[in-house]
Amino acid sequence: MEFSSKLLEQAVNRMAQFPGIGKRTALRLVLHLLKQPVSHTQKLANSLLQMREQINFCKNCHNISDTEVCEICANPSRNNTIICVVEDIRDVMAIEATGQFSGHYHVLGGKISPMDGIGPGELTIKPLLEKVKSGVVTELIFALSSTMEGDTTNFYIFKQIENLPIITSTIARGIAVGDELEYADEITLGRSIVNRVPFESSLKSQ
Amino acid sequence: MEFSSKLLEQAVNRMAQFPGIGKRTALRLVLHLLKQPVSHTQKLANSLLQMREQINFCKNCHNISDTEVCEICANPSRNNTIICVVEDIRDVMAIEATGQFSGHYHVLGGKISPMDGIGPGELTIKPLLEKVKSGVVTELIFALSSTMEGDTTNFYIFKQIENLPIITSTIARGIAVGDELEYADEITLGRSIVNRVPFESSLKSQ
Repeated sequence: MEFSSKLLEQAVNRMAQFPGIGKRTALRLVLHLLKQPVSHTQKLANSLLQMREQINFCKNCHNISDTEVCEICANPSRNNTIICVVEDIRDVMAIEATGQFSGHYHVLGGKISPMDGIGPGELTIKPLLEKVKSGVVTELIFALSSTMEGDTTNFYIFKQIENLPIITSTIARGIAVGDELEYADEITLGRSIVNRVPFESSLKSQ
Repeated sequence: MEFSSKLLEQAVNRMAQFPGIGKRTALRLVLHLLKQPVSHTQKLANSLLQMREQINFCKNCHNISDTEVCEICANPSRNNTIICVVEDIRDVMAIEATGQFSGHYHVLGGKISPMDGIGPGELTIKPLLEKVKSGVVTELIFALSSTMEGDTTNFYIFKQIENLPIITSTIARGIAVGDELEYADEITLGRSIVNRVPFESSLKSQ
């Protein structure tokens, strides 16, 4: 692609760095900005910057939050002895939308994936183990997507806590293997929480 | 969608204002930014702002350009008596990529579309007419897409210049090179027969 303007080319190249957005789509998006008033782009740029620079994570569950402790963790009517381990905020939103879970979450921030250079140290596994070892937690629900990376992460955490006196479970395999949590319909996702199974039995069924 | 953070929600809503980007995709894109260093978002925001605030249009053809007169218009080896009328910069880039056109362009900035509130006044039709009436131009090639809006725009411009001593043409509509006849739509196939060209000229353009 040959551009008649360096400014345009630079903006297109930056937009094309988003996953799933190629140069043609990026050009279409950037031209859309040119058809809007300057204030439109200013608001977009400011809100992205503000979000990136000021974003906070709940010090308890590590979910994105504007407050030090997120609304879910701060809610006294929720059960803090059951912790649902998820990959990111999209999974929290998906599970919350089912209305089937009243415990706490723990957001890992990703999955162990040696291919992408993500080891256990990049995720919030250490604070999770500390929380579990502190003795308040009675059950840990693994709700990572059932991909190779998700299973690896589940197994890594399970191995570190298997001798502790807590129940471990995974959400029921109502979710098709290989599918992402965020795209599951609410009923299936809700059932998979109600019908969670002991972690050991999920190993047997594979 | 319920967000745990206003900052996140705002950023997602802004991203979802792009055409063809829904809230889920917007969330995916915004979470991608959170996984990158802060400087990544700063560069993106700066380059969008810079582009929007400092973008220039060639005073001759109205294409996006960093200079007062774009490279195409400033090139003395190009023929300024033939003007190809297009909708936006993407069409200029597409035609330039063919290497088959050595005249000038005129970028309208859109098509007449009463449904979207775009009248002739919103486009660069007036400067085009002035250019044509100045007497330098001998041929005007209409290269708008053959939609209702494109045809309306073509016709609107044609009506204003039909009494002037210039040639007007539209790009040929026909079967794409490499396409099977049997899958072509009837209107296109019909036009390709009505507007058939001497066999020799089909050899030249290869």
